Amino acid sequence: MSPKAACFVVIGNEILSGRTQETNTQVLAHALNNQGIRLAEVRIIPDQREIIITTVSECRARFDFVFTSGGIGPTHDDITTSCIAEAFGVGLVCHEESFQKLKALFKPDAFNETRQRMAWLPEGASPIENSVSTAPGFSLGNVHVMAGVPRIFAAMVQWLVPQLSSGSPLISRTWYAENLYEGEIAQGLTLLQSEFPTIDLGSYPFERQGRHGVALVAKGYDATQVENAGNALQKLIAGTDLLPIEGEPALSEKT
Amino acid sequence: MSPKAACFVVIGNEILSGRTQETNTQVLAHALNNQGIRLAEVRIIPDQREIIITTVSECRARFDFVFTSGGIGPTHDDITTSCIAEAFGVGLVCHEESFQKLKALFKPDAFNETRQRMAWLPEGASPIENSVSTAPGFSLGNVHVMAGVPRIFAAMVQWLVPQLSSGSPLISRTWYAENLYEGEIAQGLTLLQSEFPTIDLGSYPFERQGRHGVALVAKGYDATQVENAGNALQKLIAGTDLLPIEGEPALSEKT
Repeated sequence: MSPKAACFVVIGNEILSGRTQETNTQVLAHALNNQGIRLAEVRIIPDQREIIITTVSECRARFDFVFTSGGIGPTHDDITTSCIAEAFGVGLVCHEESFQKLKALFKPDAFNETRQRMAWLPEGASPIENSVSTAPGFSLGNVHVMAGVPRIFAAMVQWLVPQLSSGSPLISRTWYAENLYEGEIAQGLTLLQSEFPTIDLGSYPFERQGRHGVALVAKGYDATQVENAGNALQKLIAGTDLLPIEGEPALSEKT
Repeated sequence: MSPKAACFVVIGNEILSGRTQETNTQVLAHALNNQGIRLAEVRIIPDQREIIITTVSECRARFDFVFTSGGIGPTHDDITTSCIAEAFGVGLVCHEESFQKLKALFKPDAFNETRQRMAWLPEGASPIENSVSTAPGFSLGNVHVMAGVPRIFAAMVQWLVPQLSSGSPLISRTWYAENLYEGEIAQGLTLLQSEFPTIDLGSYPFERQGRHGVALVAKGYDATQVENAGNALQKLIAGTDLLPIEGEPALSEKT
């Protein structure tokens, strides 16, 4: 059975302007790998109502899971929650439990209208808890709405993802072949890929601290197939120097 | 006149699996800002033919510019070039100038079929040059196909983007207000945003080295409007401690 597919919708002008480096994708991807869910697409979109509504509507129909980050704080540019409500055609209602939690946190004169607004969730939503803040994440249908601040996002992922219906975890084996060039093994890799169609064979040039080569990865959801493909891959690069996996060099992306 | 809009399509299983941290978005965003082009959307998609073709076809119709990264190397998983050709309905042809450049680089017995394949570009494409490698980037219509390796990607962006038809550059002003919470200024910001509809007012909580607060940004393509909105923003936060812009704290993303 192929794993369920997820889409991550990053809502944030600050990523698109280059102001902020996006890092939540990697956190979410690792958590989903462990849960046997495949991250199939990421979209980074601006804080604009129509775009958020259109994107969420499209993605929740196409993917088993949709995760969003960003835009659930208290300021004027935090519009995600009301956009999700509109995408589902429901209204916002005060979530009593969240309201009481927020109320307990602020002094009465600091619990202003803007802060109270954080307790308003789309009708039918259930809160996503996190251990580090009061940021109002929530799940509605197959859409899971989370904070953009990395520390809060990670806490929400940690709480949420293990509860999702899961498949077999993604397994991968990796070799770092030093002084190898992709052009030397490309034909062999093509053959190997056709022998193991359910396995994702990747080749990634790396360079770091004066050392370079190619990282070769065999990845899949069937442990035996990953093992077999890995063994065949090892034969293909027999004779090249392998770097230890510990202290993996930071990989560049593919050419 | 509103700036032209660009979409960045990142092609790479290694980003979606969490293996590699994507960093090219920020490089592209900064180059586009300087050129007066707005990065309107980013999509990260897997190395799969139909998905690449569908995504590129959709995006080149919707946006003024499309940039891609990844999948132009010599291995079996480098399928971007042939997918772009298919999206445009053209064949691949040997680009003579690129072929001669590659040929000069390799010893005759090392210039194998796989390496020669890097000189084959979609019909009508023109190469994107870069100072650090022979990776075969190219432009075809409004689609610009670049390498995923960050060093090569950056060199291609540096060569390409200044040649694109440009608008006014994006201008922004920023203040770091220490010990401020978003909830304290949310109402004021909402009012300000309605006064300056063409300016993008952002508020971004930050925390670093035990200091926290909110970064406030006024951003737009009209210098006078950015100036006026910035002055109004400064009034809104009068009385709070401002951190110096130099040595900016790394910003978290929005809640």
